Amino acid sequence: MDKILRINVGAQGGPGFSEEPLGDYAGLGGRAMTSTIVSTEVPPLCHPLGADNKLVIAPGMLSGSAAVMSGRMSVGCKSPLTGGIKESNSGGQGAQVLARLGYAAIILEGRPADDTLYKVLINKDGVQIVPDNSLKLLGNYDTVEKLKAEYGDSIACITIGPAGERKMSAATIAFTDMELRPTRHAGRGGVGAVMGSKCVKAIVLDDEGLEKRTPENIEKFKAANKLFTEGLRKHPVCGEGLPAYGTNVLTNVVSEAGGYPTNNFSTGSFDGASKISGETQAETEIARGGLATHGCHKGCVIRCSGIYNDKDGNFLTKQPEYETVWAHGGNCGIDDLDAIAKMDRMDDDFGVDTIEMGATIGVMMEAGYAQFGDAEAAINLVKEVGKGSDLGRILGNGAAVTGKVFGVERVPVVKGQALPAYDPRAVQGIGVTYATSPMGGDHTAGYAVATNLLGVGGSVDPLKGEGQIELSRNLQIATAAIDSTGMCLFIAFAILDQPETFQALVDILGGFYDQNMTADDVTALGKSVLTKERDFNKKAGFTSQHDRLPEFFKNEKLAPHNVTFSVTDEELDEVFNW
Amino acid sequence: MDKILRINVGAQGGPGFSEEPLGDYAGLGGRAMTSTIVSTEVPPLCHPLGADNKLVIAPGMLSGSAAVMSGRMSVGCKSPLTGGIKESNSGGQGAQVLARLGYAAIILEGRPADDTLYKVLINKDGVQIVPDNSLKLLGNYDTVEKLKAEYGDSIACITIGPAGERKMSAATIAFTDMELRPTRHAGRGGVGAVMGSKCVKAIVLDDEGLEKRTPENIEKFKAANKLFTEGLRKHPVCGEGLPAYGTNVLTNVVSEAGGYPTNNFSTGSFDGASKISGETQAETEIARGGLATHGCHKGCVIRCSGIYNDKDGNFLTKQPEYETVWAHGGNCGIDDLDAIAKMDRMDDDFGVDTIEMGATIGVMMEAGYAQFGDAEAAINLVKEVGKGSDLGRILGNGAAVTGKVFGVERVPVVKGQALPAYDPRAVQGIGVTYATSPMGGDHTAGYAVATNLLGVGGSVDPLKGEGQIELSRNLQIATAAIDSTGMCLFIAFAILDQPETFQALVDILGGFYDQNMTADDVTALGKSVLTKERDFNKKAGFTSQHDRLPEFFKNEKLAPHNVTFSVTDEELDEVFNW
Repeated sequence: MDKILRINVGAQGGPGFSEEPLGDYAGLGGRAMTSTIVSTEVPPLCHPLGADNKLVIAPGMLSGSAAVMSGRMSVGCKSPLTGGIKESNSGGQGAQVLARLGYAAIILEGRPADDTLYKVLINKDGVQIVPDNSLKLLGNYDTVEKLKAEYGDSIACITIGPAGERKMSAATIAFTDMELRPTRHAGRGGVGAVMGSKCVKAIVLDDEGLEKRTPENIEKFKAANKLFTEGLRKHPVCGEGLPAYGTNVLTNVVSEAGGYPTNNFSTGSFDGASKISGETQAETEIARGGLATHGCHKGCVIRCSGIYNDKDGNFLTKQPEYETVWAHGGNCGIDDLDAIAKMDRMDDDFGVDTIEMGATIGVMMEAGYAQFGDAEAAINLVKEVGKGSDLGRILGNGAAVTGKVFGVERVPVVKGQALPAYDPRAVQGIGVTYATSPMGGDHTAGYAVATNLLGVGGSVDPLKGEGQIELSRNLQIATAAIDSTGMCLFIAFAILDQPETFQALVDILGGFYDQNMTADDVTALGKSVLTKERDFNKKAGFTSQHDRLPEFFKNEKLAPHNVTFSVTDEELDEVFNW
Repeated sequence: MDKILRINVGAQGGPGFSEEPLGDYAGLGGRAMTSTIVSTEVPPLCHPLGADNKLVIAPGMLSGSAAVMSGRMSVGCKSPLTGGIKESNSGGQGAQVLARLGYAAIILEGRPADDTLYKVLINKDGVQIVPDNSLKLLGNYDTVEKLKAEYGDSIACITIGPAGERKMSAATIAFTDMELRPTRHAGRGGVGAVMGSKCVKAIVLDDEGLEKRTPENIEKFKAANKLFTEGLRKHPVCGEGLPAYGTNVLTNVVSEAGGYPTNNFSTGSFDGASKISGETQAETEIARGGLATHGCHKGCVIRCSGIYNDKDGNFLTKQPEYETVWAHGGNCGIDDLDAIAKMDRMDDDFGVDTIEMGATIGVMMEAGYAQFGDAEAAINLVKEVGKGSDLGRILGNGAAVTGKVFGVERVPVVKGQALPAYDPRAVQGIGVTYATSPMGGDHTAGYAVATNLLGVGGSVDPLKGEGQIELSRNLQIATAAIDSTGMCLFIAFAILDQPETFQALVDILGGFYDQNMTADDVTALGKSVLTKERDFNKKAGFTSQHDRLPEFFKNEKLAPHNVTFSVTDEELDEVFNW
């Protein structure tokens, strides 16, 4: 992982590439890599779909090694959705394979001469860039099938669906999983539209003949990796809840806590929660011959995913995540798991963010376009996105644009990005993260839900403002660091609760690079990433006024606790006070 | 004009109203009134379509008096289009009538309980607010016909079309002209959507039985008004060019100067210019029994408007303005005056901004949705707005939203508002105004074209950066003051060139209020208005990064002069340096 692959799609005579040493980017990985490259090379006021924006795809610092859980891939650019910097990360096989191929980053840059679509093949023999208009407007599933037929079964694919080609600002980039299905997505912020603007449909990775990355200090690394694995296995969330029921274990928990945004953030608990809960989902999956416990990439020991089959026992989609189930479920008043799974499959196939899509459908229901609870109407709306109809183009650009087009006031977005599955009035720590993260409304950027609702990493009353700033700050810093390592964020539950597991993570890093690393180094890394991101956003025109929730979270009380968001603006401005 | 009418559309039991003395708002008028009320009473981060936004309708300081040219009405709010403060002003009869009714401002505020549509009648007997769902989704023309049938011919109407009801962010508010037609519009910034969000379809004004406002110092006022009128009549632009050919006199001038944005700002002169020029337009109007010289309100001595009949001699629309002819004409490669007039009529009827609509069609053509020059396709796109189809809703929300929905990079907007009919690369002074005006892309905010191209108020080379900052600054200050007086901006040509005409304007104000006024007072007024507006925008999240043109004006050379916009960012940040 000692080089960068730079693909200039605007080169004379068609896309060209060059390889370069890491230079100033040495030692970086994942989010630290993407945010550093974007903040260094992309003019903050450029058009997200223009020649000056760049798409950076970077495996984490530990990706491609034997470290468990190290399969996250970061994707960075100026976001077409928020207008700010974006790092969106994904599971799947891509990060491990790209890292073994030796690339610390792929950078797509420039402006294509025409609308010819390209695929990129990277294997031990080098890089090929091939025009292939036969892929035009194919869904991710069909795209991957064609690539498999051509390149065999041992590849990993990075693709965009029709949403990305159409440059919709909710478009994702799909990464194939262990079954070579395009089920894992860098979902948020419209990164797929930037890939689409570069006219790159697919990047095919093949690491045949290449080895795992080897640590500098093998003994230290191995010992730490073992301890780390044990720590994950013994933690109740990482070792029990997530494997058994997946992320969707949260549906009952959050709804019972009154923080489950229902009917476009109108109430805080959902009558139909048990019908779409992780427990019901796991039962359904097992009964239909699917899987309730499954990993999204090799080396995962949590295995929070699963396989969701239809009523006839045929594969429909990977196990929909909690946020997806919420977005297409309770947020739209829908309590039908099969309908939700169908939408998850379509979202993955078209290449759109499930959270943004669900929030957008909620806005359409708020606009009176369909009734809350109408699953058929919701499915039809998602279909429009696939068709690329006028309506579909609106929806595919997310909740903020949809709200503007249909004149809706109650639109749950921050910096133009839809809020996920936790109401900030009843989970106030996550409200601080939504408001202030450089990413826009994003739960993964500083998952205060853990401490507010799950008692992980301490306990902070979810209904009050007290303590939320510090909580969100610390989590945002830790997250920026974890997102740089390539580690799955779900390790956070264990490292927050178990000091020895956190130390094991530090030692994995220290062992891999044979450096003396401490917790302070991790904090420093996280802060430096956030500082770069905030700096980019400032130059792109963001101010503290953009670090705010929509006013209805301050004006409308949320049942059942009848609370409003009570963290003050002055407090929000203290989050990044280092 | 000693009171404010405050209509709370969210009052218990339906909209209610109250009248109040001017208090802190005493002495203000027009833009000074609207921007002061908005910056005082509207939370900068509120949703433009929500309960906290207010729509302020205010005649100018001199409106309703015998001062010539004093018929401008200002409309203010937080803009749904830009997200910043907005003052959009209009001719027509409304300002004179409202001022004579004694109101210095109407404020619509609150959130309606349901979607019942209301009309407001204001006459010498007081105020009535009446529900009238029979007006729903009527065009402005049909709406006014119904109001005439009900209230007679001596009224003035303030109405919204279906675009306003649908809360489209390019929606206008229409003001009737001397023929009681809804042809004059507060066009920019989506003020019609805010009126629509308050569920007020029409305000009917009847000043029967009421007198002109009388000056405090009649002799001084009369003498100054006479001198002022003479000054306007003797100036070549105000006394000859505008009366003979209307604002459209500019088509040939700007195209020949290479500053006429053609085919979505791709080149700077238009082959078809002479076919849609003011000269051709006037000839056509006269040949068809229309009028080439006509005022939009009583008391106008410039009379830059006209009556445009169709081929059969029947009224089609008022004489389309230069910016309208450009927007639907050269900007879309269209050189067919009748097609342009048809779109002007539809825009007026649906209640959408002609500039924003034309720019939006240009963006659709850029997206490949239609060919540049295809008048029929352009007409069909405008029709969609009237229908309120999904596509129409996109278009009715303007160029920025349309660009986002269709993934277009070259979108000519600043602060979300479309740039008008002068290319900032070949008329660099207007580029400074576009970039920095608190209103977003707006030529009227500081019309540097006068000095750059017409030699009015001195001479500054249009193709170079030198001198443009000072030019735009001085014009923005003067304009903010003129927009507060109720005077039509076209007096600016004469007062810039003729010191005695400027002095006459100062004396009209001084005579009306019997105060010693000087040029310094006018400057101070303008600065104070701009400062309030900039302050509102800052609190709404605007920074110097928002005072920038889209990057393609810096990167793409404009033929025939092959120039880019050369005023630097640092210079732009000096515009408001008092």
